[in-house]
Amino acid sequence: MPAYIKEIVHRNLNAARDSAVSLWIGLIVGVPVALAEVFYLKGITVIYDLRAVLGNWTLIGMPFAGLLIVYLMNTFGKDCNKGINHIFRIVQGKEHSLSLRVIPLMILTIWLSHLVGASVGRATGVIQIGVAIALWLGHMLHLDNDKIRLTVSGLAAGFACLFGTPITAIFFSLEMFVSGALQYKGLGAAIVSATVASLVAKACGLVPMRYDLPLNYTFSYIEFVKIGLLGICCGWVGSFMAWSLKFSRKQLKKYFPNPYRRVFVSSCFIAIMMFLCWHGRYSGLSRDLLDTAIAGQIDMPWDWVLKIFFTILCLAAGFQGGEVMPLCVIGATFGSYFGNLLGLPVPFSAALGIAAVFASGTNTLVAPIFFGTELFHGHYARYFAIVCALSFYCNHNRSIYEKQRRLRS
Amino acid sequence: MPAYIKEIVHRNLNAARDSAVSLWIGLIVGVPVALAEVFYLKGITVIYDLRAVLGNWTLIGMPFAGLLIVYLMNTFGKDCNKGINHIFRIVQGKEHSLSLRVIPLMILTIWLSHLVGASVGRATGVIQIGVAIALWLGHMLHLDNDKIRLTVSGLAAGFACLFGTPITAIFFSLEMFVSGALQYKGLGAAIVSATVASLVAKACGLVPMRYDLPLNYTFSYIEFVKIGLLGICCGWVGSFMAWSLKFSRKQLKKYFPNPYRRVFVSSCFIAIMMFLCWHGRYSGLSRDLLDTAIAGQIDMPWDWVLKIFFTILCLAAGFQGGEVMPLCVIGATFGSYFGNLLGLPVPFSAALGIAAVFASGTNTLVAPIFFGTELFHGHYARYFAIVCALSFYCNHNRSIYEKQRRLRS
Repeated sequence: MPAYIKEIVHRNLNAARDSAVSLWIGLIVGVPVALAEVFYLKGITVIYDLRAVLGNWTLIGMPFAGLLIVYLMNTFGKDCNKGINHIFRIVQGKEHSLSLRVIPLMILTIWLSHLVGASVGRATGVIQIGVAIALWLGHMLHLDNDKIRLTVSGLAAGFACLFGTPITAIFFSLEMFVSGALQYKGLGAAIVSATVASLVAKACGLVPMRYDLPLNYTFSYIEFVKIGLLGICCGWVGSFMAWSLKFSRKQLKKYFPNPYRRVFVSSCFIAIMMFLCWHGRYSGLSRDLLDTAIAGQIDMPWDWVLKIFFTILCLAAGFQGGEVMPLCVIGATFGSYFGNLLGLPVPFSAALGIAAVFASGTNTLVAPIFFGTELFHGHYARYFAIVCALSFYCNHNRSIYEKQRRLRS
Repeated sequence: MPAYIKEIVHRNLNAARDSAVSLWIGLIVGVPVALAEVFYLKGITVIYDLRAVLGNWTLIGMPFAGLLIVYLMNTFGKDCNKGINHIFRIVQGKEHSLSLRVIPLMILTIWLSHLVGASVGRATGVIQIGVAIALWLGHMLHLDNDKIRLTVSGLAAGFACLFGTPITAIFFSLEMFVSGALQYKGLGAAIVSATVASLVAKACGLVPMRYDLPLNYTFSYIEFVKIGLLGICCGWVGSFMAWSLKFSRKQLKKYFPNPYRRVFVSSCFIAIMMFLCWHGRYSGLSRDLLDTAIAGQIDMPWDWVLKIFFTILCLAAGFQGGEVMPLCVIGATFGSYFGNLLGLPVPFSAALGIAAVFASGTNTLVAPIFFGTELFHGHYARYFAIVCALSFYCNHNRSIYEKQRRLRS
C-alpha cells in the first residue's frame, strides 16, 4: 500500500473516532444539562411572578438573604465559592473536578438573590450547572481525559438554554476561556450539545429571547461612522463595567474583611438605594428596561450608569448570579441613549448596544456578533459585526472573567 | 496618586497610542492597496470581455502562455516564486520582506493565466499585492516592527476589494495565518484598512459580488438535519480539494522535474481536455457556473468534480491565480447538486455550499460565515453558521495553504 493511502486511511480513521467521541459527548451532555437548566430557569420565572405580586417589599429581605447566601456558600461551598474562576482553572489544567453540590447551591443562592431583588443575572448558574453535570457524566463514563471537550460542551449546552441562542452558545464556549483564540478542540461536541440542549429546552417550554426590529433601516456613510462611534463607546462602557466590578470587589473586601458584615452592611445600603432610585427600577434582571429600550423609549438617560452601579455592588457584596443579563441591560440602555444622541434609530442602537457591551464585557468577539444576530431574527448581521469588532478592540483587553487567558497583546 | 489611577492612566495612554498606530497603518495601507487592486481586478474584467469575443481559441495559447509564465517566475521571481507560502513565513517571523516586484509579476502572470483560460482564481494576486504594498509602506515609514499588523491590514484591504466584502476580509486576515486562533493583533488596522479599501474600490467602480436569495424559506427539523449533512459533505469536498492540490503538485513535480516541460506537457493536455469538456465550460473563473447554480439550475451534476480536476491541474502545472473563486464555484455546484438530492431548495443550498467549501478549503471558520452573509445581503446568517461550523469541523484540518499553522489537534 503506498504511503499516502496509508496516511489517508489513518487520518480518516482518526477523524472518524474523534467525531464519534464528540457526538457521544455532545449527546450525553446536552439532554441532562438542558433538563437541569430548565428547572433552574423556570424557577427564576416563578420568582419573578412572585415578585410581581409582592412588589418591592422583598427588598427588605436583602440583608437577611445576603447573610444566608454567604453562610451557605461558606459552609457548603468548597469549589463553588470560587465561582466561574474555578471553571477557568479546570480548562487551564490547574483543577480537576467540580463538585456536583455546586448545582443545588447555585440554584438556591441565585434564586434567593433574585427573590430579594439583587441586580444580578443568571449566566453564572447556567455555566456552573452545565459544566458540573458534564464533568460528572464524563467521570462516570471514563472520559476524564477529555476535560476540555466536556467543559466546553457543558457550557455550550447551558448557555444555549439561557437565551435560546445555540450558535452564540457554541462560539461563547469556544471563546470564553482564552481571549484571542477559539478553543476549537470542543467544536464538534459543542455543536451537538448546544443543538440538543436548545431543542430540549424549547420542548420543555423555555421561550427563546427574541425581539423584532424594524426592517426598513438603510444607512449612509455618516451613519456608518456614527455606528462605529457607538461601537467604540460601548467598548469603553463594557471595559468600565469589568474594571469597576474588580475594583469594588477589592475595596469592599478591604473595608469589610468579614464576609457576613460585608454582605449585611452593603445590602442594607443597596436595598435603601434601590428603593429610592425609582422604586426598585434597577432590582433583579430589569428585563423591562431592556424591552423598553428596544421598543424605542428612553425614559431616563442615566439608567445604564445606575444599572452598572447596582450590579457591581450586588456582586461584590456577595449575591450570586451572572453578569451577562446586566451587560445586556446596560448595553440596551446605553445604546438607546447614546444612539439617540447621535441621531440613530433608538431600537436599532439599543440592539447594537446589547451585542457590543456583551462583547467588551466578556472580552469575546464572535459570540456577541451571533448573539445580536440570533436575538433579532438574523437581521442586520453586518452592523452587529461592526460594533462588536470595534467594541472588542476598544475594551482595553479587560474582562469580567478575571482568570480568562489573554493571548492579545 | 493611588496606584490604580496610575495604572488606569498608563493603560489608557498605551491603548490610545496603540489605536493611533492601528488607525494610521489602516489608513495608509487601505488607499494604495485598493488602487492597485482596482487596476489588477479591472484588468481581469477586460480579459474576460476579450475572451467573450475570442471564444475558446485562446485555449490554444495555453502551452505557450504557460512557458512564458514559468520563465517570468523563474527569472524575476525570487520571493514571489514561493507564492502565498512566503507570506505565511513573514507572519511566522521566518522571512522579513516581500519584494515589490511581486506586484507586476503577479498581475502579469495571473492576467496571462486568465487570458488563456486556466481554471484559477484571483485571490493569490490580491493577497500578495496587498501584503507587498503594506510591507513596503511600513518600511518607508519606519514601521518595520509592526510586520504582523502591516501584513494583516494589507491582506484585509486586498481581500475587501476582491468581492466587496469588508467584514469577511477582516476575519479572513485574522484567521488565515493560524488555524484555530484569531490573530487579534491586527484587528484594529484590519478594520480600518478593509473599510477604507472597500470604499475606494467601490468609488473606482468595482462592483461587489452580491446575489439575491428567495426570502421565504422556512425549515423543519428534518431539513435542519439535511442542512447539517450538506455542511459535513462540503467539509469533505473542501478537504479533498486541499489534499488533491498538494498531491497533484507533488506528483507532477516528480514526473516532470523540469518546470518548462511540466507546464508545456500539462497544458497541452489541459487545453485539449478543457475543449473536449463542453467547450471550455471549466476554463477561467467559471462565474457562469456560480450564477446558474445560485439561480437554481443544475445542468451537469459532475460540474464540481471537473472543476476540482481542472483547478488542481492548472495550479500544479504552474499557472498563477488563486483558489478562492474555484472553491466558490465548486461549493456552489456541489451544493446545488447535493442539496437537490436531499430535497433542499437549490439556490439556497448553492449559497450554503459556497460558504461551507470556502470554510473547509481554507481551514477557516468565522470568515466564511460572514462571506455567505455578505454575499447574500445578510440573510440566513444562522444557516451559514451551521454549515460552516460543520464543514470546518469535518475537513480533517486540511488547508489549501500548506504553511498555515494549525493550533487545532
